[in-house]
Amino acid sequence: MQISKQAIEVAHKRIQKYIRKTPSIVSGNGTFGLKYSISLKLEHLQHSGSFKARGAFNSLLNNTIPEAGIAAASGGNHGAAVACAAHALGLKAKIFVPEISNPAKIDKIRSFGADVHVEGAAYADAAALCSEYQQQTGAIDIHPYDAVDTINGQGTVALEWAEQSPDLDTILVAVGGGGLAAGVASYYANSPTKIVAVEPYGSCSMHAALEAGEPVDVKLDSIAANALGAKRCGIFPFEVAQSHIAESILVEDDAILAAQRRLWREMQLVVEPGGATALAALISGVYKPAEGERVGVLLCGGNAELLQVNNTLSGR
Amino acid sequence: MQISKQAIEVAHKRIQKYIRKTPSIVSGNGTFGLKYSISLKLEHLQHSGSFKARGAFNSLLNNTIPEAGIAAASGGNHGAAVACAAHALGLKAKIFVPEISNPAKIDKIRSFGADVHVEGAAYADAAALCSEYQQQTGAIDIHPYDAVDTINGQGTVALEWAEQSPDLDTILVAVGGGGLAAGVASYYANSPTKIVAVEPYGSCSMHAALEAGEPVDVKLDSIAANALGAKRCGIFPFEVAQSHIAESILVEDDAILAAQRRLWREMQLVVEPGGATALAALISGVYKPAEGERVGVLLCGGNAELLQVNNTLSGR
Repeated sequence: MQISKQAIEVAHKRIQKYIRKTPSIVSGNGTFGLKYSISLKLEHLQHSGSFKARGAFNSLLNNTIPEAGIAAASGGNHGAAVACAAHALGLKAKIFVPEISNPAKIDKIRSFGADVHVEGAAYADAAALCSEYQQQTGAIDIHPYDAVDTINGQGTVALEWAEQSPDLDTILVAVGGGGLAAGVASYYANSPTKIVAVEPYGSCSMHAALEAGEPVDVKLDSIAANALGAKRCGIFPFEVAQSHIAESILVEDDAILAAQRRLWREMQLVVEPGGATALAALISGVYKPAEGERVGVLLCGGNAELLQVNNTLSGR
Repeated sequence: MQISKQAIEVAHKRIQKYIRKTPSIVSGNGTFGLKYSISLKLEHLQHSGSFKARGAFNSLLNNTIPEAGIAAASGGNHGAAVACAAHALGLKAKIFVPEISNPAKIDKIRSFGADVHVEGAAYADAAALCSEYQQQTGAIDIHPYDAVDTINGQGTVALEWAEQSPDLDTILVAVGGGGLAAGVASYYANSPTKIVAVEPYGSCSMHAALEAGEPVDVKLDSIAANALGAKRCGIFPFEVAQSHIAESILVEDDAILAAQRRLWREMQLVVEPGGATALAALISGVYKPAEGERVGVLLCGGNAELLQVNNTLSGR
């Protein structure tokens, strides 16, 4: 029961008083130009702006945290989630952020009172600094996707959704390193609900791993890479995906931007590109549901930079 | 049963397949700097971007619509709602829009295929043109707030919320012309749930009416006036408010902008100023709940102009 429905149920009991039970909403026929209605899980409304708060809380609550607290290297949603969970639990967090990071996300990390250290041109530089700090201080790390507690935490989003929309035939979920998809797929394993993994062409670590038969490095070049851009998917997620993910599909960046735009214009929802990636598969027609198929789309992240969003959304 | 809980139940049956059942979410302790958690009803995710779609659908479905269709004067949420409902029901809509209107809202009205006529410096000019058109063509009007079908339609938001959050002691709702507040208050009439009406100082037609003992003209000068700015509240809403609204309170524009900012930063929700007005009463401390009081806040509109939102929200 390392990663399993039962472990996810245990994780849910552990974290539920700290997280938001995010709502789901039915879009209505015609919305997004689709002839059918879909269930959207509004997980971008989670504390810290993404599902990653679930894994962070589960990891912190299920482990003994040293005096030195937690250190993480991330200029994105993982950093915000770790900072948020540490803050709520009264723990120290130090977040190492590469200089290229999205200012909106750095602001969010700071807003949780974390000690933010911005240094290094790329993610790898920040990661090296973080690792050094951990060795010096004894601060512990939380892996953003390749760890049992992380994945079981992310899986709790599926537990909530299954209660809110018990009749879904298919769930579309975006993949970065694979932690969310693995959690969702593990929860629905041995159920009739089919999980479809959606990645941008320019950030497709899971698709590449499934093709190669093992995790392999991919090049990152996508509008959604700042949330989904894992160079290589996790080993745990890969193993779950091999058994429990029905399809792995890819979408173009333009389709992601179109989905982001339609979420704003037709549902007043602002998500970041990674948060619009799963929906892009439907709107672009890359995933075509069968007649009567009941489809759910997970909106996983909302930490958009509004200035950028405005430029994107004001396009016709 | 002109305006009543029973009439709202009938309206709900009539419109439910056309509207979105908007979700509610619990904020979590600490969110918005509040020590307590609140229930937020995300009605800004409704079709057309506000609760007004409910009243529009109820009005169109409960009346015989002439060949000439519907005409409305509104550069805002009412216009979008009428256009949206007409489009869904296959009816003709002509919307008269004053030149000062928010471009985001004009775009939304157009997106529903309505015939949009932009002319006249102020609302009164557009209203005069609309009235002339109605006389010439026989097109009918839907009143944005002072009509039984409109108010019963708006009240359906309370019916949904009562099911989602059955234990609320108090509901804060923004007031423009008073249609939404009247619908909500009528649904909860003779229940223990208390309704609090919230208005900006610079757009307070209901507060002024309750003080004067009858609807009176007010001056409009508020950031939220493009959604809430009724010069005089409706007679029906006023009568409902006299019996069923527990308190009428006022908030400053700065408090509205602060609430709008916190909704984005802490919950990834983008609302327009009118949509943030009820929450402003809590964050600013104008409304102070008692220990243990369970409070609900209705987010009523999301048709923000993102460029403006970005400028607002990027402030510290």
